[in-house]
Amino acid sequence: MILSIKESVMSVTAPSLEPWQWPEEHWRQLVAQVRAGRPLRPSVWPGGARCAVALSFDADHETNELRDGGKSIGRLAWGQYGSRVGVPRILEVLRRHNVPATFFIPAVAALIHPDEPRRVVDAGHEVAIHGWIHELNSALPGPVERDLLLRSADTIERLSGRRPVGLRTPSWDFSPDTLAIEMEMGLLYDSSLMADEDCYELLLAGGPSGVVELPVEWVRDDAAYFIMHRFQSLRPYMPPTGVFDIFRRELDAAWEAGGLFQLTMHPHVIGYRSRIWILEELIRHAVAKTDVWFATHEQVVRHAVAHAAEGGGA
Amino acid sequence: MILSIKESVMSVTAPSLEPWQWPEEHWRQLVAQVRAGRPLRPSVWPGGARCAVALSFDADHETNELRDGGKSIGRLAWGQYGSRVGVPRILEVLRRHNVPATFFIPAVAALIHPDEPRRVVDAGHEVAIHGWIHELNSALPGPVERDLLLRSADTIERLSGRRPVGLRTPSWDFSPDTLAIEMEMGLLYDSSLMADEDCYELLLAGGPSGVVELPVEWVRDDAAYFIMHRFQSLRPYMPPTGVFDIFRRELDAAWEAGGLFQLTMHPHVIGYRSRIWILEELIRHAVAKTDVWFATHEQVVRHAVAHAAEGGGA
Amino acid sequence: MILSIKESVMSVTAPSLEPWQWPEEHWRQLVAQVRAGRPLRPSVWPGGARCAVALSFDADHETNELRDGGKSIGRLAWGQYGSRVGVPRILEVLRRHNVPATFFIPAVAALIHPDEPRRVVDAGHEVAIHGWIHELNSALPGPVERDLLLRSADTIERLSGRRPVGLRTPSWDFSPDTLAIEMEMGLLYDSSLMADEDCYELLLAGGPSGVVELPVEWVRDDAAYFIMHRFQSLRPYMPPTGVFDIFRRELDAAWEAGGLFQLTMHPHVIGYRSRIWILEELIRHAVAKTDVWFATHEQVVRHAVAHAAEGGGA
Amino acid sequence: MILSIKESVMSVTAPSLEPWQWPEEHWRQLVAQVRAGRPLRPSVWPGGARCAVALSFDADHETNELRDGGKSIGRLAWGQYGSRVGVPRILEVLRRHNVPATFFIPAVAALIHPDEPRRVVDAGHEVAIHGWIHELNSALPGPVERDLLLRSADTIERLSGRRPVGLRTPSWDFSPDTLAIEMEMGLLYDSSLMADEDCYELLLAGGPSGVVELPVEWVRDDAAYFIMHRFQSLRPYMPPTGVFDIFRRELDAAWEAGGLFQLTMHPHVIGYRSRIWILEELIRHAVAKTDVWFATHEQVVRHAVAHAAEGGGA
Repeated sequence: MILSIKESVMSVTAPSLEPWQWPEEHWRQLVAQVRAGRPLRPSVWPGGARCAVALSFDADHETNELRDGGKSIGRLAWGQYGSRVGVPRILEVLRRHNVPATFFIPAVAALIHPDEPRRVVDAGHEVAIHGWIHELNSALPGPVERDLLLRSADTIERLSGRRPVGLRTPSWDFSPDTLAIEMEMGLLYDSSLMADEDCYELLLAGGPSGVVELPVEWVRDDAAYFIMHRFQSLRPYMPPTGVFDIFRRELDAAWEAGGLFQLTMHPHVIGYRSRIWILEELIRHAVAKTDVWFATHEQVVRHAVAHAAEGGGA
Repeated sequence: MILSIKESVMSVTAPSLEPWQWPEEHWRQLVAQVRAGRPLRPSVWPGGARCAVALSFDADHETNELRDGGKSIGRLAWGQYGSRVGVPRILEVLRRHNVPATFFIPAVAALIHPDEPRRVVDAGHEVAIHGWIHELNSALPGPVERDLLLRSADTIERLSGRRPVGLRTPSWDFSPDTLAIEMEMGLLYDSSLMADEDCYELLLAGGPSGVVELPVEWVRDDAAYFIMHRFQSLRPYMPPTGVFDIFRRELDAAWEAGGLFQLTMHPHVIGYRSRIWILEELIRHAVAKTDVWFATHEQVVRHAVAHAAEGGGA
Repeated sequence: MILSIKESVMSVTAPSLEPWQWPEEHWRQLVAQVRAGRPLRPSVWPGGARCAVALSFDADHETNELRDGGKSIGRLAWGQYGSRVGVPRILEVLRRHNVPATFFIPAVAALIHPDEPRRVVDAGHEVAIHGWIHELNSALPGPVERDLLLRSADTIERLSGRRPVGLRTPSWDFSPDTLAIEMEMGLLYDSSLMADEDCYELLLAGGPSGVVELPVEWVRDDAAYFIMHRFQSLRPYMPPTGVFDIFRRELDAAWEAGGLFQLTMHPHVIGYRSRIWILEELIRHAVAKTDVWFATHEQVVRHAVAHAAEGGGA
Repeated sequence: MILSIKESVMSVTAPSLEPWQWPEEHWRQLVAQVRAGRPLRPSVWPGGARCAVALSFDADHETNELRDGGKSIGRLAWGQYGSRVGVPRILEVLRRHNVPATFFIPAVAALIHPDEPRRVVDAGHEVAIHGWIHELNSALPGPVERDLLLRSADTIERLSGRRPVGLRTPSWDFSPDTLAIEMEMGLLYDSSLMADEDCYELLLAGGPSGVVELPVEWVRDDAAYFIMHRFQSLRPYMPPTGVFDIFRRELDAAWEAGGLFQLTMHPHVIGYRSRIWILEELIRHAVAKTDVWFATHEQVVRHAVAHAAEGGGA
């Protein structure tokens, strides 16, 4: 059924038509492919907490450069920094404040640094799927995407000792095939889309998928502000104090609303001496509120689902 | 007559000429196509207010991505955020402070979210035209632009319950045909150009058009500072406090001058928890002056025109 | 002689050679085409002032868009803003503080707004050359560049009532032919290059040209921080307070050094209500020092040359 | 042996394969080409200092423009600024605070300004290699890169009076051939890679190279924040106060950790009046700590190596 939906979307695409010429059926099908359904916002959080804080780290390491062809030794060294300096520094901050987090690790990054997934899990954190080599899913045929995701899950399980239950697509590049693959894999959650600030159930072609979205946003992503690319025009133009101010406002307003504060960071981005304080200061700020629940992405989703089943939501 | 003007502009264009080779007649005709005419700055505002504040929201939602081909599920989810989270959050801020605003909604966005236009109007706001699918007018043949704008007006009327009287061209992309179409449609105003900070009458090929421009500017547009595009170099590099400072300075100086403060925002841009405070703080700042008139774009234009007829202007 | 130098530079260029393969003679000739010579830094400024402040405004108006083909009505309206709002607002600030400045006006901009050059001169300011239609000189054959510059000088003289004595190349795009043309035109100064912070004599192929450079820099250009281009990645990402801070530091350090503070602004950039305060606050800051000489570019250059002749410099 | 490694990497590359199709052997070999090995972090610094400060200046001058074809006279003038204003201003700041630094100078820049290397050395600083004409190594055949580096070393030795012992590749563009060439040249250190914040030994295809890496990072590079390129989208969007804040945080945290603070600057970037205070204020800040060791890159590396030999490291 799923493939037929995708085929029917494609079938109404006349390649020679411009978007303003599309028949209504076509743009409605494009929009309906994957959609935010039932909100999964619990009215209470565990322990009577007022809001939840879900920190995540995309440990891409060398795969960002490998995905682009692997020719730059400088960028490969930058990737090694993520594992050699960034991850240990992050783990130390989390340990100091006794805070759990979720690490999304591409399979190839895990194979290059095979001790990292286990070290992360042993420290009490979650490891989840982040693709094979940080590939862009929307550039892949569906069966290739499926094969890479299945192998990624197996690799993460083998190296971390736990079967992963969530997926963040690399670069948040969610293809028309991704959701069906996640359903087939029996994943609990995805964390790549941004239709809300609270968890919600994903709809596939209008029907419930059973997969929960724990939404991300560029506004809560360190790379949006800090990434540097020598041969593009990307530069770290935002002062670190500006980034902290944004993250803090997101956190404070989530607390006001009794909702979820989710944050995406990268070891090779936040790990620098002039930036790591942002993470530590945010944690201190949240801890000082006394009624904040720090949780892995998996824990947040399980709580949201369980509570919704009791009649919560909306 | 209108088409002949456009044809005559084109006729003096020798495609093989570079701009520095153009005959004077050619660049004079290019400049004269659409021009700022009679200023429409009232010397007084209703209720003895010292300045007018015209807030607007371009509710593009999924159409930004559809206009580009509709292939990114991530960007479609981002569009859904605008309607699911952004618009309700904005409406709540406006309600709390009892402030009217104008929402420019592409027809396709309105069709995807058919209850939104009515909800906006029922809350006391104006809904106006913002194209069909956020198309770029300058890439369209004139008759196609005309057809899309006529259908857009009908769609907005049907879904909002009121015939729209104003148009903001998507991306402020005003084509050589736009003004003639606006005249034919009998529109009261356009809000896409930027030759002044006060309202003015648009001239078509040197003659009065009867259409009023309520001018916009990138300096007063949230997207200029905050937009993110994964595959371009656009990043939200400006700290929110910097954006607030700019908007506040524009407002304060409009108040000093006794003029108009117009602002363009987007539900999928300003709606985030770390940014929505900019809108609320601006409103508080204006309200504290006690002599500010908040109005829809239509109200501002009607007042400016009525007053100019009494001998105001300049 | 001049053309033969240019020819000789070109003659050693083997088009198939990469820069790292160039013979030394070739890169030496490239570097030697136009060079900073004798420094022209006076040890004293008129009236015993400690430093000189040379404010300039490039009144490009519609020519930025015309130079690119003139297709965007929105950008033409933006250009009109420069003349309709920007220039009057700037003139008012300068008048209020009784400060002279230099306006560089492309000939086509002057022809579109024929009263502007005279109004500027009547207010006590200098008008100088800024090309024909804001063309890029380095894209033009030498004779075309020469023809446009000669016609530009005549146009400015006719509309301002004074023969211009200085040239700022549009976009500071100084071609291998520019200096020879400036010499032929008998110009006093150029203001497009950036090899120093004080005035200096330009060398043509190693020999004195008699033309003085009053140097510019992107660091002292409002457009570098504020320009917006819808279809490029240029956005006004720098907060106005940041721009003021940079300009103030340049001014303070020029005062410390007893040198020259030169600034480039644009009516369609600095003229906005949220930015014009930068100009006014800078002037106030300089005035408060009590020993600052505000002067046109021409006045600065004449003083620098006269003083150097007395044995100053270095 | 070295070439055979490179050949074997290439041999497993099937050009028709996409990265996600690569056999594991291929991406493992890509990653293993050049790798961070043994950490060289001394537990003590000379004189009981708590941290080391290694300031460096890449004196590219005209070579940035020559490398790109040398057509822009404006950018060549900008390059001259680096030597005419930037270097003397930097030397004066270093002299005032009696602080040593390392200058990386492309051979062609040294040939254009032949007195500069000696002047730098005479003031107590180190001069090291920075390529021939700021070429991009990864675009060159190995023998060409080797020839240019050998000639660069000879040129620097002749003009500075000292044989250089370190190399910073232009634009930090480290090719698959660079390390083998550095080994052949007997260089003490490289300063182009970024796998750590402390010194480390470089591994070539898994084996010790004997060459020490003194790592750089864009986060500690003035050009990342300040560079301007008229025809790209690069603008100096970061306020100088923001850049100072980042550098100070890097320095303070290096001091906390007892490690190394390395900084890359450029005379044509940091030399401006509104930026040079960043360097001076940083030096004052470090001096005020009383237990900071300022050293050239060579001195830092020699100390790190000597100490590691005594059993330090890790």
